[in-house]
Amino acid sequence: MMQGVLAPVVTPFDAELAPDPNRFIKHCQWLISQGCGLAVFGTNSEANSLSLAERKHLLELLSDSGVDSSVIMPGTGCCALSDTVDLTRHAVNLGVGGVLMLPPFYYKDVSDDGLYRYYAEVIERVGDHRLKIYLYHIPPIAQVPISLNLIERLLKTFPDVVVGIKDSSGNWSNTEAMLTAFPGFRVFVGSETFLLQNMRSGGVGCISATANVNPAAIHKLWSQWRSPEAEQLQSACTNVRNVVAQYPMIAALKEVIAHYRNDQAWQRVRPPLDGLSADQQKSLRSALSACSDFMATF
Amino acid sequence: MMQGVLAPVVTPFDAELAPDPNRFIKHCQWLISQGCGLAVFGTNSEANSLSLAERKHLLELLSDSGVDSSVIMPGTGCCALSDTVDLTRHAVNLGVGGVLMLPPFYYKDVSDDGLYRYYAEVIERVGDHRLKIYLYHIPPIAQVPISLNLIERLLKTFPDVVVGIKDSSGNWSNTEAMLTAFPGFRVFVGSETFLLQNMRSGGVGCISATANVNPAAIHKLWSQWRSPEAEQLQSACTNVRNVVAQYPMIAALKEVIAHYRNDQAWQRVRPPLDGLSADQQKSLRSALSACSDFMATF
Repeated sequence: MMQGVLAPVVTPFDAELAPDPNRFIKHCQWLISQGCGLAVFGTNSEANSLSLAERKHLLELLSDSGVDSSVIMPGTGCCALSDTVDLTRHAVNLGVGGVLMLPPFYYKDVSDDGLYRYYAEVIERVGDHRLKIYLYHIPPIAQVPISLNLIERLLKTFPDVVVGIKDSSGNWSNTEAMLTAFPGFRVFVGSETFLLQNMRSGGVGCISATANVNPAAIHKLWSQWRSPEAEQLQSACTNVRNVVAQYPMIAALKEVIAHYRNDQAWQRVRPPLDGLSADQQKSLRSALSACSDFMATF
Repeated sequence: MMQGVLAPVVTPFDAELAPDPNRFIKHCQWLISQGCGLAVFGTNSEANSLSLAERKHLLELLSDSGVDSSVIMPGTGCCALSDTVDLTRHAVNLGVGGVLMLPPFYYKDVSDDGLYRYYAEVIERVGDHRLKIYLYHIPPIAQVPISLNLIERLLKTFPDVVVGIKDSSGNWSNTEAMLTAFPGFRVFVGSETFLLQNMRSGGVGCISATANVNPAAIHKLWSQWRSPEAEQLQSACTNVRNVVAQYPMIAALKEVIAHYRNDQAWQRVRPPLDGLSADQQKSLRSALSACSDFMATF
C-alpha cells in the first residue's frame, strides 16, 4: 500500500515538444533518491497534454530503467472510458503500486450515479486483483468533483480496489471529512501545506507539485511528523511552497529544475501552457535564493 | 465552404457500450436525406467519451459508406496537441469539408498566447492546404473560451485555414460581436434558436443538438430564412427545441430516436452520462406528441 511523499513528475520535452525520456527517467531516479514516490502523469506532469501512446511509452521506459514499480502511481483517468481502461490495464501489467484516477472531465454537472458507473465499468473491464485505485479529487481544474457519497458507494462495492484518494481541493475541511468518514481509506493531500495536519488526522502522505523541486524536505517532514521538530519542518516546507506558488506552477517547477540543473531544455511546456517570462524567471530565482528554507538538493 | 444546418451526430452504442457503426451510418444517411451536414464527434456525440481509435474507425466507415465527405465536419480538438494533430490529419486525408476544433480543455485560465501557440502548432504540423478549421467556442462545458482577440490573431496568421467558428456560448451578443468584427468569417450558432438572427446578421448556419431529431424543419428555416414565413419557421423550431431542452440533452436526443425508430438500443449513453429515467422518457414523449410543431420525419 502506497504512502509518503509522491511527486507528480513534471514531463520534460525536446525541441520538437516530444517527451524526453532521458531527462524524464533521470528526474524520476533523482526523486526516488530523495525519498519520493512517482505520481507520473498527474496534472503537473501535463499528462492530459500527452497522447496515450506517449504516456504508455514513457511508463514502459521508466519501468525498464530499473525503478521499483511499486513506488509508481501513474495517472490513468481520461475522458473516455475506453482510454482509461487501456491506460489502467497497461499500468497494472507493469506492476505499478497504484493508479491515480481523474473522473471523466469533459462533461460538467454529471451525477454521482454516472461517475459510479464509470468507475465500476473501468474496474470490471480491467478485471485484475492487482488494481489499486486512488481517486483524484481536483475540482478547481477537472471541474468534476469526487463527492463523499460517491466514495462511499465505491468503497462498499470495491473495497479492495478503491483504496485511497488524492485531495487537491485545497480545502482542509473536505480532507478531514473523508478521513473521518472512511477510516483506513488512504488519503493523500494535494499540497505539503496540509501534510502535518493530514498525518495527525490519519492520512498517509501528500502528492504535491513542489515535491519536484523540494523533495528531501517534504519527505523529511513526512518521516518525522511525530517528532518535536514537526511544526518547524512544516513551516519550512510551507515557506518554500509559498514562494513557488506565486507563479504558474508547472512552468515554475520546470524553471527551477532548469536553473539548478543548468539545463534550459527543462523550461519547455506544451501548449496551451506558457513558460515563464524572463522577468518571472528572474524574480522566481531571486525569491528562492532568498528563501533560507529552500535547500537545493539537485 | 461549409454552411447550412449540421447535426452534431449522436453516437449509438451496442450492449458492450462500443460504438455501433451500422446505426451510426444509418443515422448519418438519414440526416443527409433531411438536408443536414454531419458534425460528427461533437459534444452531443459523446466524442470525448470515445478513444481516438474509435473515432477514426467510425469516420473511415462513414467515409467508405459513400457519404459525401465534404458535408462532414468532425470534431478533432483534444486536450493533447499530439492527439489533435493525429485526428485532424486523419480527417483531412479522408477529404472532410472542415474540422470543428475544441481548445485543449483540461487546464483552465490558460492565456490567449498559449491557445494561439496550440492552434498554430496544430496547423503547422498538419501542414495541409486542405485543412479548414472551425473553432469551437463552448465555454459552459469546455470552460476554456475562444476570445475575439484569439480569433483575430489566428485570422491574421492563418486566414486560409481558420475559416469559421461554432458559437455555443448561448450568448447572442458574443455571436454578434464576432459577425461584426470578422466579415467573411463563417459563424455557426450552436442552437437553432439563434438561426434566423444569425442568418440576418451574416452568419452561415447552425450546428445544433436538436438537428438530430428535427433536421427537416431546421433545414427549412435555414433555406427559407429570407422568406416571409421565416419568423414562423423560427418559432416552430424554437418550440421543439424548448421541449427537448428541458431534459439532459444527449440522453433526450437518443430517447427520441429510440422511440420514433422503435429501437431501444439507441437509448444507451456511455458513462459518466445517464440515460433518462422511465418518468423522464414518458414525459418527454408526451411533450413532443403534444408539440404541434414537431414533425417526426424518421
